[in-house]
Amino acid sequence: SAFQVRAILLIMRPDDANVAGNVHGGTILKMIEEAGAIISTRHCNSQNGERCVAALARVERTDFLSPMCIGEVAHVSAEITYTSKHSVEVQVNVMSENILTGAKKLTNKATLWYVPLSLKNVDKVLEVPPVVYSRQEQEEEGRKRYEAQKLERMETKWRNGDIVQPVLNPEPNTVSYSQSSLIHLVGPSDCTLHGFVHGGVTMKLMDEVAGIVAARHCKTNIVTASVDAINFHDKIRKGCVITISGRMTFTSNKSMEIEVLVDADPVVDSSQKRYRAASAFFTYVSLSQEGRSLPVPQLVPETEDEKKRFEEGKGRYLQMKAKRQGHAEPQP
Amino acid sequence: SAFQVRAILLIMRPDDANVAGNVHGGTILKMIEEAGAIISTRHCNSQNGERCVAALARVERTDFLSPMCIGEVAHVSAEITYTSKHSVEVQVNVMSENILTGAKKLTNKATLWYVPLSLKNVDKVLEVPPVVYSRQEQEEEGRKRYEAQKLERMETKWRNGDIVQPVLNPEPNTVSYSQSSLIHLVGPSDCTLHGFVHGGVTMKLMDEVAGIVAARHCKTNIVTASVDAINFHDKIRKGCVITISGRMTFTSNKSMEIEVLVDADPVVDSSQKRYRAASAFFTYVSLSQEGRSLPVPQLVPETEDEKKRFEEGKGRYLQMKAKRQGHAEPQP
Amino acid sequence: SAFQVRAILLIMRPDDANVAGNVHGGTILKMIEEAGAIISTRHCNSQNGERCVAALARVERTDFLSPMCIGEVAHVSAEITYTSKHSVEVQVNVMSENILTGAKKLTNKATLWYVPLSLKNVDKVLEVPPVVYSRQEQEEEGRKRYEAQKLERMETKWRNGDIVQPVLNPEPNTVSYSQSSLIHLVGPSDCTLHGFVHGGVTMKLMDEVAGIVAARHCKTNIVTASVDAINFHDKIRKGCVITISGRMTFTSNKSMEIEVLVDADPVVDSSQKRYRAASAFFTYVSLSQEGRSLPVPQLVPETEDEKKRFEEGKGRYLQMKAKRQGHAEPQP
Repeated sequence: SAFQVRAILLIMRPDDANVAGNVHGGTILKMIEEAGAIISTRHCNSQNGERCVAALARVERTDFLSPMCIGEVAHVSAEITYTSKHSVEVQVNVMSENILTGAKKLTNKATLWYVPLSLKNVDKVLEVPPVVYSRQEQEEEGRKRYEAQKLERMETKWRNGDIVQPVLNPEPNTVSYSQSSLIHLVGPSDCTLHGFVHGGVTMKLMDEVAGIVAARHCKTNIVTASVDAINFHDKIRKGCVITISGRMTFTSNKSMEIEVLVDADPVVDSSQKRYRAASAFFTYVSLSQEGRSLPVPQLVPETEDEKKRFEEGKGRYLQMKAKRQGHAEPQP
Repeated sequence: SAFQVRAILLIMRPDDANVAGNVHGGTILKMIEEAGAIISTRHCNSQNGERCVAALARVERTDFLSPMCIGEVAHVSAEITYTSKHSVEVQVNVMSENILTGAKKLTNKATLWYVPLSLKNVDKVLEVPPVVYSRQEQEEEGRKRYEAQKLERMETKWRNGDIVQPVLNPEPNTVSYSQSSLIHLVGPSDCTLHGFVHGGVTMKLMDEVAGIVAARHCKTNIVTASVDAINFHDKIRKGCVITISGRMTFTSNKSMEIEVLVDADPVVDSSQKRYRAASAFFTYVSLSQEGRSLPVPQLVPETEDEKKRFEEGKGRYLQMKAKRQGHAEPQP
Repeated sequence: SAFQVRAILLIMRPDDANVAGNVHGGTILKMIEEAGAIISTRHCNSQNGERCVAALARVERTDFLSPMCIGEVAHVSAEITYTSKHSVEVQVNVMSENILTGAKKLTNKATLWYVPLSLKNVDKVLEVPPVVYSRQEQEEEGRKRYEAQKLERMETKWRNGDIVQPVLNPEPNTVSYSQSSLIHLVGPSDCTLHGFVHGGVTMKLMDEVAGIVAARHCKTNIVTASVDAINFHDKIRKGCVITISGRMTFTSNKSMEIEVLVDADPVVDSSQKRYRAASAFFTYVSLSQEGRSLPVPQLVPETEDEKKRFEEGKGRYLQMKAKRQGHAEPQP
């Protein structure tokens, strides 16, 4: 069952897009995750043994390379690129196709990590059947990526940032002015048939909050430019209420970095405490009506924590800029 | 755990709005109910003891104060304002925020009553943990509201109006001409995780039927102006088919009152009969392209029943008008 | 419980329609099936005995007589027209109503066959209570339709066409150029409360793929003109991944025939193999901005199989044309 390739086609509908007709980054992330969940669940059940469902553990940093618009067909293909004993690496590519002109563009390349959970007991991680590699180097390269992400997950651990608190009458351009929280009652259509929230649903909500923060800050049409690595620390079970909070951490001339925190609250189960389920940094850019990138108002950090987060954001920004210039890739 | 305040943010999408871009009243009612269900379920589970889910029992009369449009962010906040032994009163406020201009407007203030049902047996009502009031008067005022709504519920009981029957070739402006029925097969996404329909889902369908009746009558762009108190007489369980019927009862110069009846039919369970699950009066107004309120064609009641309902509607209209003028509040 | 008539009303929303504002044929098929499922489930549970849910077994060939647009109200009514020992025939009519002008048009007439499956064991088919006919001939005519469809189902059996395979760099106007596959992970909201996919959900996905194939081929605005009979060979259970593949088989001057294959893959259950769940031919036409039908580019069949399928499609096209002219009905 070596490498598998599958394609998902979806027509983008009005509800998938903002007022300017650009499809939300979150909608794209949700499609990517659905493809990843299908291919890895299928692979992990390809041998006899205990039945399982693949749960999203991590998404690597990903850039949104070109916008997708209403009426275009999203073409999502997925491939298993590596397996460790307990995890599957999936590479997903998204193309946008204008079916009237036939034009296709690469929208997104993403790498996701899944772990197989037993259907009988979703707290038990099962073993992953090995893939067959066509070239010897593939296994070695995959192992390096596996070790690198494992290390990074352990380093960042839970990035247990404080909770976003409301502030009365904040000044424009401050962190408090644009910070936003969204509460979502997990419903049946958010969940897998096995009772936990799809990783893609969580990412879509995260992008939605980040978008509200960005729009409040710069009051223009905004689009997702990139998302850094997202670790899913713990499953979100059905019956939870999730709070997704976003706050701006850093602005460059033409980009905004927004930290998004996801907390799950098992409302009906008082034996379980509220916990941080995921967190990530989203980068947004502001676009003119003609789709050209605009300067953004500079963020004014006020508290010591805000200043610290601003400097950390600047560090990530400069590091990514250097990396892109090193690779001679175009800037988003 | 005294008073709790939470905020839900949601971007209004094209599917939430009519052709003129105004968000349906039903969409707003659904958001309000979701906020109420979250805060009251959380409160009722805040102490050790049997786990429960809060079910909507009643929504007090509510006005739609200003329209909400596509692309705006709905800001829903909820607060527990009173608890009796077996019920929770929640006050929900909805603001619309234009994130590009930053302008905010109060859209809606609603009061909802919930009862906690045991997760093990949804026919069993549990006890509600008391809230701590910051001012002594709050408890006393709450008790008065509790007694008043209890009395009104007992008085109206099931308002067991007859069923809306189709009529062949009705004349324009008659009740028969605009009356409408919608049948809905309850699906998993309409239900809580505990197998009954969300009150908000029912209210959204009720508003949808009322809107069809109003549009058929006056053939213009119409919006919800207010909804009178809705009592939820009985849970609607999964597997039901619900019939939502609407008929115009009264017209003033610039408003239409529509009675909406909700009947549940437990299709697959012949031991249970069809029952009236809820009923309410919706008031709609007709708007010009520029958003100004238009005169509406006068309703022509034909049968004795229709004439009786017209007079009752007129009574409600005059009472509400007097109340608003007494309070010197602006007319909707 | 003789003949039952029910009406479902639904406002068509932006997400139900293509860029030209025409509601997708698949959305209409889904509404038709919901009406059929409600009326036949209700009828099959109208007597005491084992409880059941009606599962779609077959939809007869149906034409889309006039387009439905965003903002219009769909008026779906259903009637039981025949019952055999184990199946129910339902006739469904769809009208579109412009609620601003009051204009109504017949959009669709469809005939569906359902079988009642036991709620305790969805592999067991129960008996159907007989209907009472108002005219003696109705039973006899119904029996003829029943025998005819039974024969046709046995003849076509599973129409086990090969799988649609991707081709690199195909030429325009070839079958490979426009062929498309969509993968869908079955979610809770796709399913009945009894754990299998609604027939209407499958038909909506089938129309979606057919539409993508048609648009890729002719690069214009396209609409569904008709669907031939669809047999549902086997239930699709929750937890499946379904692959819906479409390929163009035939073009006349102004129409395109697209074959759509539905394969179900019980991902998490390796004891069950991938199986063909349904298949059908959709006919699409190309429309100008003003809604007039346009000539379509001629399909260029390349392989022997493609040429064979083209001739078979031509046969169906000529047969249907002759039938319509024989009945002196207007061409779609």
